[in-house]
Order: sequence, then structure tokens, then C-alpha cells
Amino acid sequence: MSLIVMKFGGSSVADAECMFRVAQRITDCYKAGNEVVVVLSAQGDTTDELIEKAREINPNGSKREMDMLLSCGEQMSVALCAMAIQKLGFPVVSLNAWQVNLRTDSRYGNAHITKTSAKRIREELDRQRIVLVTGFQGISREEDITTLGRGGSDTSAVALAVALKADLCQIYTDVDGVYTADPRLVPNAKKLQEITYDDMLELASLGAKVLHNRSVQMAKRYHIDLEVLSSFKNVPGTIVKEVAKMEKVVISGVAMDQSIARIALVGLNNEPGVAYQIFAKLAKKNIDVDVILQSIGRGDSKDISITVTREACDEAVRVLEENREELGFEYLNVRKDVAKVSIVGGGMLNTPGIAASMFQALYEEHINIHMISTSEIKITVLIDEDKADRAVRAIHNKFFD
Amino acid sequence: MSLIVMKFGGSSVADAECMFRVAQRITDCYKAGNEVVVVLSAQGDTTDELIEKAREINPNGSKREMDMLLSCGEQMSVALCAMAIQKLGFPVVSLNAWQVNLRTDSRYGNAHITKTSAKRIREELDRQRIVLVTGFQGISREEDITTLGRGGSDTSAVALAVALKADLCQIYTDVDGVYTADPRLVPNAKKLQEITYDDMLELASLGAKVLHNRSVQMAKRYHIDLEVLSSFKNVPGTIVKEVAKMEKVVISGVAMDQSIARIALVGLNNEPGVAYQIFAKLAKKNIDVDVILQSIGRGDSKDISITVTREACDEAVRVLEENREELGFEYLNVRKDVAKVSIVGGGMLNTPGIAASMFQALYEEHINIHMISTSEIKITVLIDEDKADRAVRAIHNKFFD
Repeated sequence: MSLIVMKFGGSSVADAECMFRVAQRITDCYKAGNEVVVVLSAQGDTTDELIEKAREINPNGSKREMDMLLSCGEQMSVALCAMAIQKLGFPVVSLNAWQVNLRTDSRYGNAHITKTSAKRIREELDRQRIVLVTGFQGISREEDITTLGRGGSDTSAVALAVALKADLCQIYTDVDGVYTADPRLVPNAKKLQEITYDDMLELASLGAKVLHNRSVQMAKRYHIDLEVLSSFKNVPGTIVKEVAKMEKVVISGVAMDQSIARIALVGLNNEPGVAYQIFAKLAKKNIDVDVILQSIGRGDSKDISITVTREACDEAVRVLEENREELGFEYLNVRKDVAKVSIVGGGMLNTPGIAASMFQALYEEHINIHMISTSEIKITVLIDEDKADRAVRAIHNKFFD
Repeated sequence: MSLIVMKFGGSSVADAECMFRVAQRITDCYKAGNEVVVVLSAQGDTTDELIEKAREINPNGSKREMDMLLSCGEQMSVALCAMAIQKLGFPVVSLNAWQVNLRTDSRYGNAHITKTSAKRIREELDRQRIVLVTGFQGISREEDITTLGRGGSDTSAVALAVALKADLCQIYTDVDGVYTADPRLVPNAKKLQEITYDDMLELASLGAKVLHNRSVQMAKRYHIDLEVLSSFKNVPGTIVKEVAKMEKVVISGVAMDQSIARIALVGLNNEPGVAYQIFAKLAKKNIDVDVILQSIGRGDSKDISITVTREACDEAVRVLEENREELGFEYLNVRKDVAKVSIVGGGMLNTPGIAASMFQALYEEHINIHMISTSEIKITVLIDEDKADRAVRAIHNKFFD
């Protein structure tokens, strides 16, 4: 008997028909003799509808009240799914965040899980029940409801898997696994049977929106095997684990992110503390900086380039301009029409020539590279947004054909 | 400075416009220097919509899951109202049942409040905040969400008023007070300034659906002054209290209930234990019996007549027929086309001739009386349903003109 945590996203439980499809998956797993804990997101557009309702009343309502409102989405979802499972004739109970004592910090709207208890769930499993738990939400030290931010249900699932010492945490989604590139973009992209946590982390942060990053980090820290699979097709997915079976390829995939902007601070003083100043200002405004790149300085001047999400770009520019004198740059060079393309793979560490192959693929397509950034397991380039699709296909074919 | 508990029903918070009207009432009360605790129902048709969603999936889902689902209605309501109050610029916090530790028994769908804590609310009031609390719901000993049944928000409000030792508990509704008869039926019905708990209880149980009965009982037990008033018109309502100012009339009002059915068990054995057997059978099926009437027997046979809600009638008949042999009646006489008309008033105790006046009014309208039942403060008659409106007007005019 295994203990399996299954997580289904909003599109998987969008309406009554979907709800029964999910209920069938859950009860199949239960019938196979497993203990089953299920984490659910809110149905389809419920969260957006609640946000709209709130906006109508007050676009600047507090995040605390927003979380009070939004957390209802998942609660309705688990209750309705429980009824679907009862209809199929199985014992089930739905629980929300306070009932499972899932604790978070107090960052309303973007809270982080601090701890969770296995007690109530364990009791319900011992009663032979299927246990449904609300994703996306927790309880702060002040006994208030918090939400984990978009995609947080993945993290809820992993946190519960950790607390329950689950054998496997399955994340059901609208794709059937992790691919070497976006299959809509690269028709011959292939599904990976396994991938390491690290490669998955890099792919996720690079725009392959399969798993919420915090969930992968948590799974890695506590050695929980994750499986990404389709809630619509009944086929094996991709397992995310510590050490993946080496497939023939040295890279795990090609990822693209079109939601970014680049800001270059040109003509900074070449003296210690400049970088610190810049990132302290941005952090103070909660602006997440993605790639940071500083080339060697020329004389007493240097440039620093950063990428941020396109949404945050205007605010980042405002913050930097407000502090222009203090930071001491000459001007900003901002571009929003750029995309980030990356290859990821633990295998590239010991394989020379990977970067060369990637750059060759781009050269053959006459695609100019604006920025290059590398880590031990990935290589990222910044290129024009309108050439990004072509770049991904060319790079993928170079490595996987 | 007074501590005031205000309760608003679902129609008072149905949409954004209503929400701001309520927010205005609340903040006016706060600005006047009061500590303000507000109990809200779910918005407009939310509860019905959630029930419909559940029915679509499983008409026989467990009550426990139904309560998990329905409790979201009030939580959304308090969160949205908090945002409206924030928009008006006032400090506010919304809390749900577990946050205020409002405890109930485990009768899902129809739970009774066992105790509630003032702690969290007191802390929030001390921070100068307006406190919004979800009505209609509580937490069972098993740490599950329960609901109090329709109209339970009134009871939530009184329970909180008791726990907080509130100076006044205001129940805002779509009528502006308690009238001597239904104003839609009797145009010259007059609004009462004050009414006693007992008279209010009789009126409520007789179909004058102004206040939830359990809330009045609780207010009476703990000496909480209730005020019934309109959430739409800014005029004083009716105060429900221990001793009401004597107005000129000896009765408080005329009430009518058309949602009942009468069942007569004819030809019962005239021996001890028969009544016990009947009501034990009905209670076992959770069928509430309203009026019970047993005339003196003739020889070795007697009749017992009861009224039940029209909804419960078929089930009651089924239960009785199934046990016909054991109960030993000859046949049942069932009528669903009857109505109950009553006059209520502590004043009638010491005023002779009240019953005579009531029966005279009916006689003058040629309305036949099927059943009569009296208590110390009320007289109830059962008549044909199609004559009920006429009966109420005639009786009202006899006493109030």
C-alpha cells in the first residue's frame, strides 16, 4: 500500500463533467489499494471571478481580505469533488487549511508555507477515507487565512506529501509531462520519462510553466518524487527526482520566456557597492530581478543589465530613475520586445561544446544574441522576441534530432 | 460608548450597491462612537446557487460536505463588505466561524450554537476596528464546519451579542419592524415600538417571519435587547425586550401561516401511552409537530389532530400509516388546504373576552373554524386556506380599529 498525494489544477475541475473525471481518477487510485490525499485548486475561472467581484467594490482592498475571499474558491472545489466521490460510492472527507493546520507566514497573497500537520489527515486515512484538501491556502500565525499566490496548490501538495511521508506526489495538469521543448512550438519535442529536480527548476524558472518552482524546491529538499501527468489522458507522465535515468541527450530541454524585459544601466561608476545599491532599491519595491549580467568595466565606468518581468518593468524603471543620482548611471536602455531562450541539463556539465552548438543553431538562423548568461546546468540567451519561436525550434533540432 | 451587534441578511448585501449601503450604515454607527460588530449572511442568491451546483453533481451529497460548501457564501460576503468599508476609509477586519471560535453541535445543516468566544473579536475591537463576522455557520467538536440552517444568521448575531455583552443587537431586514399584522395584507396594520420576547416568539412561530425563533429564545435567556429594523429605510424599528411598554392594545399582532397541513388520527384507543407512541415515531424521523390537539375521548376511542409543515406532511402520513397497527387508529384525515391564524399578546391574560372577539370577527365573515388551540398568550384557529386573508383583516380590524 502506497500513500499518494494527487494534485489537480483548476482546469481539471472546471465543471461537473470534469469533476467526475477527476473523481474517477481518484477512486481508481483508491481502489488500487492506495491511501489517497488529493489537493484541489479552485474551479476553472472561479478565482478570476472573485477577483472581479472584489475589483468592482474596491480595487484597493487589503490583501488580507482578498485572501479571505479567494480561499473560498478551493473550499467550494473540495466540497463539490467530495460529493462527486460520494456519488461514485466511496468514503471521502474534504478539509481546508485550518483543519489540516497548514501554516504560512503572513505575506497575504504570496505566503510561504512554514509547516503543516499530518494529524487530521492521518486520522481520516485511518478511517479508510479519501482525503481532499484545499490547495493554495494556509493559516498565518495571527490565525488569518493566507493564499500562496498563483500556482501555490502545487506547493500545498508537496508540503502535504512531506508531512505525510508520501511515496509519490502526482501533479495532474493539462500537459502529459515535461517535454524537451514546448510541443506546440516544436512538433517533434519528446516527453522525458525522468528529469532531475535541478533541471526541472531551471526549466520552470525559464518559462516552461509545468510546475510551480517552490514546489520543486520543496520536493528536492525533502526528497519527494514528483510526477507530472495529464488529468485528461491516462498515460504515464514525467517523474521529477534526485537522479534521473540518463537518456541519450545531455540537455533536458529548451525553454522560452517571452514575458520579460531587459533594462541596461549604462555608465555606472566602476566602484564597490554600486550593484548592492541597485538591487537593494529594487528589492525594497518587491521587484524580482531575473538575469543579472555585468561585463567587465572599461576605465571608471561599467554597465549592468538585468531582466525583469514585463509587468514589473515600468515600476523598475521608475525606481531606478528616481535614484539616478545616488546610483550614478548615465542612462537606462530598456527593451520590452525581447525573449529569453535557454537550454537546461545537468548533463552539459561534462559535455564540451554544448554552448557552441547552441550558438551555432542561432547563427544558422541569423538570429542575433543580445545577452548571454550561463550557470552550471543552463545557458540562457536574450534575443529579439519575434525570432524566439524560430530559435527554440532550431536549438531543439540541433540537440534532439 | 456602546457595543452594538448589527446583522444584515442576504438581500441587504445582494450586490455592490447594496454592499455600500450596508457599509454606510455600519460606518455611521462606528462614527457615532460605538464599537461595532457586524454579522452578515451570504449575498442574495449565493446560497441557492451553491445548492444548485451541488445538486448538479450529487443530489444526495452528505450534509457535512454541503456545509463545507455553503459556508463559503458568508465568507465571501464578509470579505467583500470589508473591502467596501475600506473604500469608505475605515479600519475593518472580517472573521469566519473558526476565527471567532463559534462552536456548535454536529447536526450538519441545522446545527445549534453551544458556545462562542469573545477573545478575537475583543482584540480587534480594541484595535479600533469594525469587526465583520460570518453568520449562519459554526465549528463542531470534530473541527468541522456546520451551518445553522436558514435564518441562522440571526442566531449567530445574538450569540455574539451575548458573548460580547453587547448593549444592543440590531437585526436589519427588508421590513422596518414588527407589525400588528402583515402590512401587505392589512393596510392599516401598525408598527409596534416594543414587543416582549414571548409575544415575538409566538408571532415568529406563527408565521410572521421577521426573526429566527432560536435567536429570540437566546436573546430572552440572556436578556439581550433586539431591534428589528430596515436596512433600506433609516427609521427606528421595533425593540424586542423583556417588558414592553404597554400600548393601548392587549394583543401584539395577528399572524397567519399557510405552510401547514393538518393530520387527524381518528379512532385511537383511549388508553395511556398512545400519544407517546405517535410522537416518538414522528420525532425519530425528525418531523416537527406544531399544534397538537386531543379532545376528550368518547368511550374507548379518541382522536388526535396535529399540524405539520406542508413539506413534511407526506412523510408524516407515511410514518403513521406504516405504524397503523401498533398505534391503533382507524384512519387518517389529512388536509393540506388549511391555514393557521393566531392572535398573540401577553396582554390577553388579564383581559376577558379576547377569544370571543376573535371568534366573533370570524363569524361575521362566515368563516368556519376547524380547530382551536390556545396558550396563555395566544389563540390559534385552523380555517380554510382560501379564507385566511379575509380572516386576518377581520380579526385585525376587530382589535386595532
